[in-house]
Amino acid sequence: MTYCVAICVNDGLVLCSDSRTSAGVDQVSTYSKMHCFGQPGNRQFVLLSAGNLATTQSVISQINRDIREAKPGNLMSVATLDEAADYIGKISREEQEKHGGGGVVYEASFILAGQINFQPSMAVLIYPQGNHITTSPETPYLQIGESKYGKPVLDRIVNPETSLEECAKAALVSMDSTIRSNVTVGPPIELLIYQHDTLSLDPICKLDEDSPYLREIKRSWDFLLKEAFRQLPPIAWSKAREPKTVMEQSQNNPPLPPVTG
Amino acid sequence: MTYCVAICVNDGLVLCSDSRTSAGVDQVSTYSKMHCFGQPGNRQFVLLSAGNLATTQSVISQINRDIREAKPGNLMSVATLDEAADYIGKISREEQEKHGGGGVVYEASFILAGQINFQPSMAVLIYPQGNHITTSPETPYLQIGESKYGKPVLDRIVNPETSLEECAKAALVSMDSTIRSNVTVGPPIELLIYQHDTLSLDPICKLDEDSPYLREIKRSWDFLLKEAFRQLPPIAWSKAREPKTVMEQSQNNPPLPPVTG
Repeated sequence: MTYCVAICVNDGLVLCSDSRTSAGVDQVSTYSKMHCFGQPGNRQFVLLSAGNLATTQSVISQINRDIREAKPGNLMSVATLDEAADYIGKISREEQEKHGGGGVVYEASFILAGQINFQPSMAVLIYPQGNHITTSPETPYLQIGESKYGKPVLDRIVNPETSLEECAKAALVSMDSTIRSNVTVGPPIELLIYQHDTLSLDPICKLDEDSPYLREIKRSWDFLLKEAFRQLPPIAWSKAREPKTVMEQSQNNPPLPPVTG
Repeated sequence: MTYCVAICVNDGLVLCSDSRTSAGVDQVSTYSKMHCFGQPGNRQFVLLSAGNLATTQSVISQINRDIREAKPGNLMSVATLDEAADYIGKISREEQEKHGGGGVVYEASFILAGQINFQPSMAVLIYPQGNHITTSPETPYLQIGESKYGKPVLDRIVNPETSLEECAKAALVSMDSTIRSNVTVGPPIELLIYQHDTLSLDPICKLDEDSPYLREIKRSWDFLLKEAFRQLPPIAWSKAREPKTVMEQSQNNPPLPPVTG
């Protein structure tokens, strides 16, 4: 599997992806799932990929070939990010259909994020069917792959006003929770922060398993989460067995109301 | 969907389940998924159910009918919890096969937890196929239904030495994360704590949406999690753009190593 997340806030974009691919439990490899395309000062795109590796690699190759050959509608000539998403959706479907058929599917999903000229920065999720959706102020992030484990922390932390640094931390914590609970998602983790209107990309930050920062995030988050848990209001369980005591305590410490089941 | 979790630690068992069932988005109802059977002083069972509601209701009815008719091998006469799980697995398969066929499946999963005489307290997950697994010291919990959102917190908090009160809090936090991220899981939440060797069950604690304790847990956890997040070590992002500065800062604050991607 894979886990990729893109966060789109007022200040720009944060992209994060793992690097584990598996074709069966005895065929596990490391591949980057983060691909950059752009012209500094004019447009920048980051493409995150999940699903069948043959399909995603073919799509990346085709994108590069189209740019090299200056094919009409390639990533360097599209007018909007929506148009770019439609273009990638189309070649993704073509690649899937090339080798699929007879009930076999080689599906792939993508997240395309970036900015063209000084249009708004955007992130879109491109489904295997080729269509796409974008973020909203209420849900300023998109996920592909093994998305459930890392969703709760994003739901709590990220909103359009969140700074890029905080978004990057949220993405790493979301990734850490996923890696901890699902063995098919693994390091190195790649992280990219795009500041709105710069129209230039920093190098991808690659965090290996033994990266000091990643270890520190993992260790701190584990410690802080346990601390937070310890501070939760206690359950008035022993009192719940004696309803009378529960009533007496209810002002200070809301007890569990006992109900016959 | 459904979310049920059972935690089995040295001190006993903690069971927690939601109460939302849905047959399509416009047919959402409230049903308890926690069912108790027992003879005080002799044996106690709690059964959590997920999956097709017709199947789970039929299984519960059959269990009660077999107890009433003192049928050989019913829950009040089985010698071990494993035997009880085999019995429930068998009637679950029978119910599924009764109405299934032609590619249609009415699958159901169960968690059976409890204690017979002074044997060890146990929890087992009964698959739709009728077979079952139990917990281990490394994984002292079982989940059925929408399990992924609530797994990270259990992985971090629960171990065999955890107290029943802490396990109950962990179960509620796990449930809260699931409810927050998945609309098909919802209150009332039912919670039951079984203390090893008591061979008696407290009444089920039923926590409605407006239960003061549940609200307090939700509010506190949200606040504490955001606080914990705020305390995570900052990302040295602005520095990562100037590799020289990164090197200078690396002693105090591990920066993100920039790697060309």
